[in-house]
Amino acid sequence: MDFAPSPRALALQEPLRRFMQDLVLPSHGDWLRWADAGAYPLDVIEPLKAQARAAGLWNLFLPELRADEPGTRLANGDYAPLAELMGRVPWASEVFNCSAPDTGNMELLHRFATPAQRQRWLLPLLEGRMRSCFAMSEPDVASSDPTNLGTRIVREGDAYVLNGRKWFTTGAAHPHCRLAIVMGVSNAAPDAPAHQRHSLLLVPMDAPGVQVVRNIPVMAHQAIEGHCEIVFQGVRVSADHLLGGEGEGFAMAQARLGPGRVHHAMRTIGQCELALELMAERALERMAFGKHLSDFTNVQDWIAWSRVEIDQARLLVLHAAWRMDVEGNAAARTEVSAIKLVTAQLQTRVLDRAMQVFGAAGLTPDTPLASLWSWGRALRFMDGPDEVHLRAIARQELVRSRAHRGENVLHLRRWMPPEGGIDG
Amino acid sequence: MDFAPSPRALALQEPLRRFMQDLVLPSHGDWLRWADAGAYPLDVIEPLKAQARAAGLWNLFLPELRADEPGTRLANGDYAPLAELMGRVPWASEVFNCSAPDTGNMELLHRFATPAQRQRWLLPLLEGRMRSCFAMSEPDVASSDPTNLGTRIVREGDAYVLNGRKWFTTGAAHPHCRLAIVMGVSNAAPDAPAHQRHSLLLVPMDAPGVQVVRNIPVMAHQAIEGHCEIVFQGVRVSADHLLGGEGEGFAMAQARLGPGRVHHAMRTIGQCELALELMAERALERMAFGKHLSDFTNVQDWIAWSRVEIDQARLLVLHAAWRMDVEGNAAARTEVSAIKLVTAQLQTRVLDRAMQVFGAAGLTPDTPLASLWSWGRALRFMDGPDEVHLRAIARQELVRSRAHRGENVLHLRRWMPPEGGIDG
Amino acid sequence: MDFAPSPRALALQEPLRRFMQDLVLPSHGDWLRWADAGAYPLDVIEPLKAQARAAGLWNLFLPELRADEPGTRLANGDYAPLAELMGRVPWASEVFNCSAPDTGNMELLHRFATPAQRQRWLLPLLEGRMRSCFAMSEPDVASSDPTNLGTRIVREGDAYVLNGRKWFTTGAAHPHCRLAIVMGVSNAAPDAPAHQRHSLLLVPMDAPGVQVVRNIPVMAHQAIEGHCEIVFQGVRVSADHLLGGEGEGFAMAQARLGPGRVHHAMRTIGQCELALELMAERALERMAFGKHLSDFTNVQDWIAWSRVEIDQARLLVLHAAWRMDVEGNAAARTEVSAIKLVTAQLQTRVLDRAMQVFGAAGLTPDTPLASLWSWGRALRFMDGPDEVHLRAIARQELVRSRAHRGENVLHLRRWMPPEGGIDG
Amino acid sequence: MDFAPSPRALALQEPLRRFMQDLVLPSHGDWLRWADAGAYPLDVIEPLKAQARAAGLWNLFLPELRADEPGTRLANGDYAPLAELMGRVPWASEVFNCSAPDTGNMELLHRFATPAQRQRWLLPLLEGRMRSCFAMSEPDVASSDPTNLGTRIVREGDAYVLNGRKWFTTGAAHPHCRLAIVMGVSNAAPDAPAHQRHSLLLVPMDAPGVQVVRNIPVMAHQAIEGHCEIVFQGVRVSADHLLGGEGEGFAMAQARLGPGRVHHAMRTIGQCELALELMAERALERMAFGKHLSDFTNVQDWIAWSRVEIDQARLLVLHAAWRMDVEGNAAARTEVSAIKLVTAQLQTRVLDRAMQVFGAAGLTPDTPLASLWSWGRALRFMDGPDEVHLRAIARQELVRSRAHRGENVLHLRRWMPPEGGIDG
Repeated sequence: MDFAPSPRALALQEPLRRFMQDLVLPSHGDWLRWADAGAYPLDVIEPLKAQARAAGLWNLFLPELRADEPGTRLANGDYAPLAELMGRVPWASEVFNCSAPDTGNMELLHRFATPAQRQRWLLPLLEGRMRSCFAMSEPDVASSDPTNLGTRIVREGDAYVLNGRKWFTTGAAHPHCRLAIVMGVSNAAPDAPAHQRHSLLLVPMDAPGVQVVRNIPVMAHQAIEGHCEIVFQGVRVSADHLLGGEGEGFAMAQARLGPGRVHHAMRTIGQCELALELMAERALERMAFGKHLSDFTNVQDWIAWSRVEIDQARLLVLHAAWRMDVEGNAAARTEVSAIKLVTAQLQTRVLDRAMQVFGAAGLTPDTPLASLWSWGRALRFMDGPDEVHLRAIARQELVRSRAHRGENVLHLRRWMPPEGGIDG
Repeated sequence: MDFAPSPRALALQEPLRRFMQDLVLPSHGDWLRWADAGAYPLDVIEPLKAQARAAGLWNLFLPELRADEPGTRLANGDYAPLAELMGRVPWASEVFNCSAPDTGNMELLHRFATPAQRQRWLLPLLEGRMRSCFAMSEPDVASSDPTNLGTRIVREGDAYVLNGRKWFTTGAAHPHCRLAIVMGVSNAAPDAPAHQRHSLLLVPMDAPGVQVVRNIPVMAHQAIEGHCEIVFQGVRVSADHLLGGEGEGFAMAQARLGPGRVHHAMRTIGQCELALELMAERALERMAFGKHLSDFTNVQDWIAWSRVEIDQARLLVLHAAWRMDVEGNAAARTEVSAIKLVTAQLQTRVLDRAMQVFGAAGLTPDTPLASLWSWGRALRFMDGPDEVHLRAIARQELVRSRAHRGENVLHLRRWMPPEGGIDG
Repeated sequence: MDFAPSPRALALQEPLRRFMQDLVLPSHGDWLRWADAGAYPLDVIEPLKAQARAAGLWNLFLPELRADEPGTRLANGDYAPLAELMGRVPWASEVFNCSAPDTGNMELLHRFATPAQRQRWLLPLLEGRMRSCFAMSEPDVASSDPTNLGTRIVREGDAYVLNGRKWFTTGAAHPHCRLAIVMGVSNAAPDAPAHQRHSLLLVPMDAPGVQVVRNIPVMAHQAIEGHCEIVFQGVRVSADHLLGGEGEGFAMAQARLGPGRVHHAMRTIGQCELALELMAERALERMAFGKHLSDFTNVQDWIAWSRVEIDQARLLVLHAAWRMDVEGNAAARTEVSAIKLVTAQLQTRVLDRAMQVFGAAGLTPDTPLASLWSWGRALRFMDGPDEVHLRAIARQELVRSRAHRGENVLHLRRWMPPEGGIDG
Repeated sequence: MDFAPSPRALALQEPLRRFMQDLVLPSHGDWLRWADAGAYPLDVIEPLKAQARAAGLWNLFLPELRADEPGTRLANGDYAPLAELMGRVPWASEVFNCSAPDTGNMELLHRFATPAQRQRWLLPLLEGRMRSCFAMSEPDVASSDPTNLGTRIVREGDAYVLNGRKWFTTGAAHPHCRLAIVMGVSNAAPDAPAHQRHSLLLVPMDAPGVQVVRNIPVMAHQAIEGHCEIVFQGVRVSADHLLGGEGEGFAMAQARLGPGRVHHAMRTIGQCELALELMAERALERMAFGKHLSDFTNVQDWIAWSRVEIDQARLLVLHAAWRMDVEGNAAARTEVSAIKLVTAQLQTRVLDRAMQVFGAAGLTPDTPLASLWSWGRALRFMDGPDEVHLRAIARQELVRSRAHRGENVLHLRRWMPPEGGIDG
């Protein structure tokens, strides 16, 4: 149970920290102004991407790569602390070509793409020359149970025809988005096994019939890269656009989830650390009723609990990452549910405290707190609602309990009649 | 950051687990009946102690020992998982000669005793031939701030004279308790530095003037080993009963705290694990409104949160133990405050859920839950109230904040007039 | 919605308050010493009862009485503030002949007893010459669903024969307890309607076959009046011991519940007020780190939240009592579930805060806090676990929702295409 | 303690409910489209205002009015349930000329304006022909302590000159806003009593030197009526623009607060009721894992707790309103702090649960939940942060405690030596 990053990974932390501080953060104001004006800040991002790649801070997330694929080949436990650093600025991951959903898509393509698919989609993604999205959730069903999905992928001769409506498709509004990986049902036969009905289709964003109908404001955030509602109406692509085999969509999507949730969790922890730092600094500066806020015990309690909760959450994530690296993604499934659950709930809790220390200023866009807090509420649905993860963790615990049934019976001290006394 | 126990420690886990299951647990009913009748269950304990020592499960807690001192010499991180196992039965630690407050007292004596003191007190303790107590808290002052203590240790010729009233002195009612280590003020001069006023005195329990005035029920638990109120009235001992030097009492007591809190925290986690196991098993068995309790989502939520919170707390404790082992007890002081705080609050939370699953049965002594839960409330004061630890953690965070003041200024996005726009 | 007590009830508040302060409270120490020694404090109680009756503070809880039945005939809303005052001392209700479970039993007998039953049981109860218990919960089933009960009441010729095991039968250990009202199944025919299977039997405690097998410690409280486990083994009583008709047991028991829960809730609020008062006073006295505890904002927060939560809970109870008085017990069923739920959870919350302010002293029997807090945990099961009441409240809300389905559809702002814009 | 509305007020509830349902709600989509486009929806509002006034639903909030002032003259307790109904649609209050901050401003002018001021400002406000704002909070100080304010009102000959920067000035961006009531320091003499330094100035929005520098997005809400930052730079108005006397500003502003907080609290409760209704309806409709959400006990718990908490909060507000009506605004000051605190925290709690039941849809603008929830966070600062109100409530409780010091001493059961036993 060794959570320490490898020396190579450790050696990347300080350069990344400095890159964030010296290059990313000073561009933050520009980025925000572009985004507020509704324009994707390519002029901010692209030069930084070039600098990051030159500095060896590129594709930090993929443990395994082919020789011709650029990247650092770090283990999940190695990448985690780097993701935490990136998480401090909402748009920073893109600079290092580490942003969702491309990370998961690259992983999928890396593992399952044909050579031609790899050439067409994976290499440009790894080079940062295009972006992509992943279309799974649908507005009309509880998508946390994928067996509900209504989107259809039907083979017609040498082609697949796609029909369906997706939403919360992140990244679809990015000006460089070229590819949607779409999950749909390709076999709705009543006797088809529930988890072997789905396929994944590689759909060019410019294919006829693909229509981004709106960029959904999420918690009033109009994300510049988009959380989009997309209609796929009679989209026809040649059969070589299928990723993997028919019916393998669900299994492939599962494989994609573990690492992505670690990234997400660590970025979230990065947000929490930032909020704690801002809260502490504000508490030292601001006065009320003749004292610094940092002298009030309620404020001290908020600071202390934030520190403790963040530390606990980080250890939990590092433990899950370590387990994935040692035993494989599947072995850590429950742990991954746990980190998803914990970090999402942690975020609004810590942010809420920080806002309270900032007073009314915390409500304004003059600090990142209001924006992060309300975004944090969405985290409790991203990658599955809390309830799905609680259910998974409980079921795992009940399985364990069944396997050990009766072992604790001696702890249940049944009352016994007086003749069972000491002198008996 | 490698939390894994050493191979040697790992090799002790299964034997200890089996010892608990095969020997300790089957004696639990007897132990309880003796204790309920107000008699210390020596007939239960002493044979088990002999067996434990024979099995090499003896003095598992002290990292360093002299050649003639029996024990396993495990690091804190090695001992922690063993303490968790012991924590499942409230009285089990004594079987392995690992029970508080003797552990801390042995550590103190190991580090600071003169050869004669060592011979008289330490070796019998290490052999399990006697027990001891540590008298610090006082009823009349907020003892979390030791500068308040009223007990006086005064040099008179070749002797020390001790006067004061202590309470919550654990273990003083044990029939084998021979020694009280008493903290008192030996230098009340107004200009004496606050933390150099205290001394530690080794007081035989049978010294004239030592009176155990009551065994305080704590949360209605009449502990058989006692949480006692003791009056020391004109107790006179020869000068060689002083431990260390005059004025060093506070510093020595501090040194004693770290490992003890790790032990305590891990035993507490052991209680939580037990409660979770009982809760899951009960949920699988009991029916209400036509379903098993384990099928209700609220019960599932309790189980899942308990799992996640326990796992987080355990990692935090292991991390603190690891840090103590690598960097020393002092370096981990804030971490130790954090684990004290977290595990104490965790306990009542998990126990509360388990009780709710057990229904009215959870209120009775037919399960260990009611007893553990109300004892858990006391944990929030043992080794310092929550507030003292929150304060310590917050202060540490504020120190860090002061050192980094200004680094986050670019995150505070001050509003700018329109001319600062995109095209500007 | 007028919650003010009637002038007559208002006029009783000050005399009761004074009686509590001048007569009950000074006897509290005696009462506790007797109880701790395991003897029912009749010498304390009986003289006080005589004084209370002489002062007109007797049977304050029954809204309606016959001419020959002693009591004040106060409405529920009138009695509620008086119950709050009584709740400040755990045993005080008995002094005013207002203690559970006799209150509910008297109400049952008042409404359903035959003249002979009334003579034999009700009048002695109203006179305070005997006490009684109510046996419903059973150890082997989730008794919150009474259809599960296993106790059988079988007609044999001119007699009923009773067999079953009950527990948590409060008051059965009182030296004056003469009567158990026992709920059992008298018609287990598979086609009998679920809520018409039960009957209530009036069982003299000295009937052959009645065995109090233990007085169950509840949360380690060994209640002197008993929360008992009772075996009824072949208990045979003549047919005139049936209360009401066969199959009416469930309905009668329901009728009994409403007022009793109001009494209970208000007594609980009395405990909370006491805890808040003690907490505030302690905070003003005790110093830590150079300041009074009352100057720390975290302590202030505990005090303020306790005030606010108590006030809210009291209003909720008064509202439920008012509704019972105006619309009848049945109309207020959901409100009664709500007050049961709210006050039980409030108690441990407020008590917990008070204990924290008292420091280690709060763990001892030197204050009532430890005892009240752990008792408070039991409140979450007494009169039904939280979950049963949450379920009842939710179902009521869902019924309401079904009745109004669709009324809020215009609040759901479906996204509309751009052509639906302002100028459109 | 009679909370029931007067018959006259009761008679207004159904017409108002119907007005909301039949006229306001159907216009909601239009209102939102205008507002999203950045235009104040006058075309929606103004016709509704005319209809409301014609229906006698106009100025429902002012208990006392002169003969020539239009309105219903309802008590606070009478108006409260009407405010709850209005609260269901964020912009509805304006339709009935009951929207903040005009309500408070009208109350101020009603009580303190000269006849000329009344003519110029009050009557147009009462007629709904103009709107107004109230400028108190400042960006550079913790404005919860008004003694900190930096804005200066200086007498120069026959005029007052105003300098300062205010923010969170609600309503300043409304196209009909004509008046700002500005609080500033008019007497900064070091020996001036802290609460007699402030004055209120009536400042026409078109006076030279008044500049609305930005409409601050609050929790990402770009309110169409504005929460504005305003610079007052050398604004000069004739001396008859002073409201009341010099130095009376603080006292007048205090007087303004009580009723406004009741309105606010009840509107907030209206939002909570709406959220609960939507949550229940969604739970009845939506399926997951083969069941309706309403069949899951965790969802049931959310519904039940929301019902109970809303009911408690409403009773608390009605009680405060009743007390204001009977004993005057000043007597209810602590109660008003309590309702401010409770309802603001209730809102995010209930809304959070509702969002969770809606799944990802709850994050979108397709329901009002996301918008209400994030707005709810701001409620914890509007009219003072939680901490200021907690402090006020605690201080009041401590005052009460001091007055009753010692009364509970007999509850503190000091341990006594054995000779104090039963037979003693």
